Amino acid sequence: MSDIDIILQELIKFRNDRDWEQFHNPKDLAIAISAEAGELLEVFLWKQAEEAKVEKVKEELADILAFSFLLAEKYGFSIKDIMLEKINKNGEKYPVNKAKGTAKKYNEL
Amino acid sequence: MSDIDIILQELIKFRNDRDWEQFHNPKDLAIAISAEAGELLEVFLWKQAEEAKVEKVKEELADILAFSFLLAEKYGFSIKDIMLEKINKNGEKYPVNKAKGTAKKYNEL
Amino acid sequence: MSDIDIILQELIKFRNDRDWEQFHNPKDLAIAISAEAGELLEVFLWKQAEEAKVEKVKEELADILAFSFLLAEKYGFSIKDIMLEKINKNGEKYPVNKAKGTAKKYNEL
Amino acid sequence: MSDIDIILQELIKFRNDRDWEQFHNPKDLAIAISAEAGELLEVFLWKQAEEAKVEKVKEELADILAFSFLLAEKYGFSIKDIMLEKINKNGEKYPVNKAKGTAKKYNEL
Repeated sequence: MSDIDIILQELIKFRNDRDWEQFHNPKDLAIAISAEAGELLEVFLWKQAEEAKVEKVKEELADILAFSFLLAEKYGFSIKDIMLEKINKNGEKYPVNKAKGTAKKYNEL
Repeated sequence: MSDIDIILQELIKFRNDRDWEQFHNPKDLAIAISAEAGELLEVFLWKQAEEAKVEKVKEELADILAFSFLLAEKYGFSIKDIMLEKINKNGEKYPVNKAKGTAKKYNEL
Repeated sequence: MSDIDIILQELIKFRNDRDWEQFHNPKDLAIAISAEAGELLEVFLWKQAEEAKVEKVKEELADILAFSFLLAEKYGFSIKDIMLEKINKNGEKYPVNKAKGTAKKYNEL
Repeated sequence: MSDIDIILQELIKFRNDRDWEQFHNPKDLAIAISAEAGELLEVFLWKQAEEAKVEKVKEELADILAFSFLLAEKYGFSIKDIMLEKINKNGEKYPVNKAKGTAKKYNEL
């Protein structure tokens, strides 16, 4: 079993043991991801990046990933496939010769 | 190589080909995750969950995952380890006998 | 009529002219605020604060404020009252003698 | 003095009493708005809109408004002006005859 499948299996077991699938519609999962992303932001608020507490970053990041994995599962997406597809797509939006060394958005390149 | 390592390798190649590591400090990566989470939210805005366009969900979710993987890489976190650790920790915050079938937060159980 | 009432009147007219109140339930308004906050964040992404485009900040901030005003209206909150009340409440959480010159959260003071 | 000016005066006094202007660069204020927007979202998470606790909505909304006002102040924006300008601009993006009764985005009308 792949790493991703092992994690997914644990997430699903955790969810099902608590009978929480009833709450996990895609819209609320998207809200959960954003709420957790807000908590991650708070770890960096009013600070230089290196002042953020690593332990907190770890936990908030794990929460974002967990809800993201659960949302993928909800739609039957393969996490590996959608990520590799998006990297390909971004490669077209950001060709190396134009995007190298600049943080501009693709529509400003 | 594990699935997660394959994805990470592609993400890092994409980033390094464009010389973007200079922009990817942890604070901006956290901002990027939140901005992408906001784009995912927008797919569901003013809609029932089932009306959201699946193709859009897929792309925004892949972006959130990509920046999350890159943030983990930045700190040298193992994605598998931090996720499994967090599931364990959440198991203590949400014991099955108290949390089953309710969406209450752990401090309200 | 106060400034806030003038703005609210324009927002409500805009909404009602388009028959949009049907979409503006509090949960979706909260999602809209977060989605707009994500767009504001994007203006600062990978940048120093002073590199952000002022015109963009202005527009995204106006959107956040607009949905915030509409959410207040939905609940019948007075914007002035809830803001002044919160300042008072924060004054208790962050007493000057403890909070002066530090960016720590109230539970770390 | 207008309502908005009264609120701004209180916010600035609160900030200056605590010597917090040093932390309030525009980028961190944008982060603060997003973090607070995430807390507002959490009030609605896994719930119907009408189940959200009104007292919590009030507080989180006040926080979003406070940081939004402070960001406007930082740039010297008039809150009234930028909101009325944006309503005008949105009126062009969403003409009544096309936008009435639909939640579509302007680029889909």
